[in-house]
Amino acid sequence: MTSPIRIYGLKQATCTQRVLLTLEELGLDYELKDIDLKKGEHKTPEYLKLNPFGQIPALEHNGKILFESRSLIRYIASLSSGLYNNKELVETWLECDNNHFNPKISPIIYERVFKKYYNQEPDENIIKQNLDKLLPILNIYDKHLADHEYLADTYSIADISHLPYLRMFYENGFNQYVDERPNLKRWYDSLSNKPMWKKLLIQ
Amino acid sequence: MTSPIRIYGLKQATCTQRVLLTLEELGLDYELKDIDLKKGEHKTPEYLKLNPFGQIPALEHNGKILFESRSLIRYIASLSSGLYNNKELVETWLECDNNHFNPKISPIIYERVFKKYYNQEPDENIIKQNLDKLLPILNIYDKHLADHEYLADTYSIADISHLPYLRMFYENGFNQYVDERPNLKRWYDSLSNKPMWKKLLIQ
Repeated sequence: MTSPIRIYGLKQATCTQRVLLTLEELGLDYELKDIDLKKGEHKTPEYLKLNPFGQIPALEHNGKILFESRSLIRYIASLSSGLYNNKELVETWLECDNNHFNPKISPIIYERVFKKYYNQEPDENIIKQNLDKLLPILNIYDKHLADHEYLADTYSIADISHLPYLRMFYENGFNQYVDERPNLKRWYDSLSNKPMWKKLLIQ
Repeated sequence: MTSPIRIYGLKQATCTQRVLLTLEELGLDYELKDIDLKKGEHKTPEYLKLNPFGQIPALEHNGKILFESRSLIRYIASLSSGLYNNKELVETWLECDNNHFNPKISPIIYERVFKKYYNQEPDENIIKQNLDKLLPILNIYDKHLADHEYLADTYSIADISHLPYLRMFYENGFNQYVDERPNLKRWYDSLSNKPMWKKLLIQ
């Protein structure tokens, strides 16, 4: 690496957290450039040059411009070692985040947590509908984690990718759905107690 | 490789096609084991050992069991060379498929194409709502492809990943939305005319 990794994002945002956790865990040098969503800084012509979809986060490093948080964590993990072992299994569980876990948990967090940021009221129907779909998925994770310490056996970006939404879920009134699934709970405790996570939260 | 790659899936299914196209393009030895969705073969205890989420496709190779189609195409592309260059850009655009393109186009195809398979009527409202969201995304792709021959500059699994849904969209009454975007059209024509695609369709 010849220059620090620049991340455009917001420390409070789940997708940016996925990236910052990976950087913290690997101890890589980075700088975070805040993008103020309320001011619409993610929709300016300058920002759209970084990410034409107008979302955070984006990454700039040695002339490369990348976007989509799971693409960023793959890139960052590839710069170092330790979080991208068992690559095929990591890919499988990153895709499970994309296609099973995240589509159900993110609308719940949007309604319960993010709408406060915009002074809006949550839609309890959306929360209920997505919770009904999420719980069978949590059962599958719980069963998988009965035989696997981490999603891809060893600790990886697949685990880190799930943590920001899972923590917001746990901390905002839904902890019972984790607590009553013992393997999921053990995994969640292991991740949420890691120093990189605590460091990010108090920074 | 010491044994052929076994794919569990269905040639007519978009997510399986993503995998078969990659195998065909790379000329790798594989066998397809049909999973009959109407008979619920994707929900049997045996199949759930391959993929606990009960979806096709899954892959078995040299003792590895993997699922999620974009995890499969990464694995397959890693066995050979040519479709996984510019890896960071490939990852970014595979994630764009996951998070922008696919969530909008797949409900349209489900309503217009797949419901026929189950003798159900399409919900035109769902088609309209998702089309309204898809068209701005197609504009972003069209603009990106003005400066890039392929999504990640050189032909890759990122392109292949988009093709099955895009082709069903094109062939089932939505071709105008591709035809009126010149760079998207050039890219679509280039992909849909590749021999691997034609070979898959006539097999």
